[in-house]
Amino acid sequence: MGSSLVELQAAYAAGTHSPETALAQCLEAIKADNGRLNAFLNVDIDGAQAAARVSTRRINDNQARVLEGLPIAVKDNLDVTGLATTAGMATRRNRLAARDAGVVARLRAAGAVIVGKLNMTEAALGADGRNPHYGDCHHPHQAGCSPGGSSSGSATAVAAGLVPAALGTDTMGSVRIPAAYCGVFGLKPSFGLVSTAGSVAVSRRLDHIGPLAGCLEDLGLLLPVLAGFDPACPVSRPVLLVEPKQDLIYGLPELGRVALADDVAEPWQAARQALVNRHFHHRELAGLAMDPGRIRRAGLLLCEAEMLVEHGPDWAGQRDNFSTELQTLLAWGERRSAPELAAAVRTLDQARLALNAWLEQCDIVILPTTPQRAFSLAQPTPANQADLTCLANCAGLPSLSMPLPVAANELPCGLQLIGRHGRDREVLTAAAQLQAILRPETINR
Amino acid sequence: MGSSLVELQAAYAAGTHSPETALAQCLEAIKADNGRLNAFLNVDIDGAQAAARVSTRRINDNQARVLEGLPIAVKDNLDVTGLATTAGMATRRNRLAARDAGVVARLRAAGAVIVGKLNMTEAALGADGRNPHYGDCHHPHQAGCSPGGSSSGSATAVAAGLVPAALGTDTMGSVRIPAAYCGVFGLKPSFGLVSTAGSVAVSRRLDHIGPLAGCLEDLGLLLPVLAGFDPACPVSRPVLLVEPKQDLIYGLPELGRVALADDVAEPWQAARQALVNRHFHHRELAGLAMDPGRIRRAGLLLCEAEMLVEHGPDWAGQRDNFSTELQTLLAWGERRSAPELAAAVRTLDQARLALNAWLEQCDIVILPTTPQRAFSLAQPTPANQADLTCLANCAGLPSLSMPLPVAANELPCGLQLIGRHGRDREVLTAAAQLQAILRPETINR
Repeated sequence: MGSSLVELQAAYAAGTHSPETALAQCLEAIKADNGRLNAFLNVDIDGAQAAARVSTRRINDNQARVLEGLPIAVKDNLDVTGLATTAGMATRRNRLAARDAGVVARLRAAGAVIVGKLNMTEAALGADGRNPHYGDCHHPHQAGCSPGGSSSGSATAVAAGLVPAALGTDTMGSVRIPAAYCGVFGLKPSFGLVSTAGSVAVSRRLDHIGPLAGCLEDLGLLLPVLAGFDPACPVSRPVLLVEPKQDLIYGLPELGRVALADDVAEPWQAARQALVNRHFHHRELAGLAMDPGRIRRAGLLLCEAEMLVEHGPDWAGQRDNFSTELQTLLAWGERRSAPELAAAVRTLDQARLALNAWLEQCDIVILPTTPQRAFSLAQPTPANQADLTCLANCAGLPSLSMPLPVAANELPCGLQLIGRHGRDREVLTAAAQLQAILRPETINR
Repeated sequence: MGSSLVELQAAYAAGTHSPETALAQCLEAIKADNGRLNAFLNVDIDGAQAAARVSTRRINDNQARVLEGLPIAVKDNLDVTGLATTAGMATRRNRLAARDAGVVARLRAAGAVIVGKLNMTEAALGADGRNPHYGDCHHPHQAGCSPGGSSSGSATAVAAGLVPAALGTDTMGSVRIPAAYCGVFGLKPSFGLVSTAGSVAVSRRLDHIGPLAGCLEDLGLLLPVLAGFDPACPVSRPVLLVEPKQDLIYGLPELGRVALADDVAEPWQAARQALVNRHFHHRELAGLAMDPGRIRRAGLLLCEAEMLVEHGPDWAGQRDNFSTELQTLLAWGERRSAPELAAAVRTLDQARLALNAWLEQCDIVILPTTPQRAFSLAQPTPANQADLTCLANCAGLPSLSMPLPVAANELPCGLQLIGRHGRDREVLTAAAQLQAILRPETINR
């Protein structure tokens, strides 16, 4: 269908579209393309159509709420009342949700139409888009290629135009990595800003729920709806969304420790150069003071330990229903000691201090989202996929992935922005500034 | 000496006192009483006198900063440049600090005079005021009695009039418990509001630095100086200090799960009744939905695991210099698994949700600070000392202990207030409202 949320809003206002016709187009696109993409695991046709009817009526009655009648799909680790929350796991195939996740409730209260549940990496641990239980999710622009993960279905569904926007979750990069691979926009908000109540946890300390969409405006529309203190979420905090500055200082870090593939290094350097050429206020930043692989491994241990609690009864009672890969990871975490876990959390704290030090010198740090572009599902998964994204999870800072300009037939490539805590809107402002100079005609493939 | 910070400020302005004369009175009181109290481990006479001279000159030059010339002492787990930071541990006897802790730097920048370092429970784990390496700290009003801990020296020094105010640290109640036992005011601020950089950590997730003083006005004076984002602290966040409401709703929880000693239950019931009688807007709250002992044990495991990292090299190299009690605790934590630690953190999250649920129904929860009053150092330490205070640490919420009215010859008793995150000033406002109705003539012993 191809319309963004803001375009749909305008079409509803103009009367050229209604929530019911917009949903019908989504359902048609899903019917046409989901067979090859496997982005949706569950389309809630009846529920969505009922919601669209209500929204159509409210628009006609001038009772439209802020997201009235806008179709949105959610990753399958977020509870939607009456539907299974599989988290991409065989063990949870029939685990029906008794109530909506906090974010889903907020979307509904704002009038959004929940279209269905999206494919994801098993238990959201990993970023390759494979799923041994529900089938791999495929890249929207190249068959047999990874869309990234763990929010693989979220990025694929948006990039393929099945829905204009989707929710994903991001523990080490799981919103931004698939956004980068698929050529869409993805936002990981400030820690504590968006409730994670009603999600299947990987790590409560690192998990963030965030939106993916085809344009920045849509992320800006969704953010204030998703944000808000939720007493039912143990990591929720009242966070003030600070007004963005306009005269932003950009930080350009040296990335010697991260091996960038040539086809990422080249557009990244071009983006840096564009900033400099256009006289953006910028600062060169020293390289990361620590080994990103060490951060990744520490984050993985934290996730494994918490997942053994989150999935404890299933791990005890039906271990065979976990994939061999996940079994290996969890069994490793099971044998670690409490002080080893405490030390891992300290390592994550170091990453936070490193980002804080960068953000003492600038307002927005930019860097590539991933060290490589999307890879073939027949190839092994690159180990360093999340090395650039996990930093913002450790630090709890807002971070966005946006497409970098690439040639017309190339796979997408992502540029990542990181801002200060509570300055999520500043990150959106920065992305808009960058989009304006990064040859916009080539950004949307 | 007995003057509060705000009284000293007025005396400086009137010219009846100067920072140098005020410091001289502190030093005299320390000389007279510290032998029996053992509140100070280290008095920095030269450093304090030099600072007081500068402050006296600045006041004379009309260059006074917000805390100009006010004498303040700090717990010995906070770095003060050039002095040892013992954390009450034998292993750290000669561990000189190369720079000031974040909070100490802020106090100095505001003009405060740092008088010295205060006794504390070994490694800040425990709340009884005993210290096998540096000697027990004694209750200011009753020899041989525990002042509480772990900020034992902070509360004793303030209550005995050695200094008008002090900093303590509070991981499960270590500011509020000794404040309650000694009859002074103590504030544990919102998590993330006050930097813990340059402190010896017990648990970074639970540690808070907070002030103790003889009156609420002094806490109100110190709070904005201590608060502020610190990029060098991994748990620091920009926190907006919200303006307090005046028409507060007080929540009065049922405390059936916590065995209150009669001499605490009686003034606590009297305080509840005073609120009701004076027509304060109040709500009865259901009892805590979980076993407080379970929360305490989970918190203890988190502390042990993190302390094994914080003190890792000393634990490996000179274990004999840890007390037998501490060795037993750390050895237990050492044998726990990573998933057990993750499960403990989940338990702490539950405590947070329970407090959130209470604060959905009111602005300020009140409850006793401790289930008992100060006990004899010859008696065993009550196991449930921190059961009422640790809740606010798990939840990261601002919490204050203030004296409850007791008869003239009795040991003090503490009333605890807990407010919403970022509403530290509202907690101070509430404390002032309560102080006005709780027979003020008997509050200050």
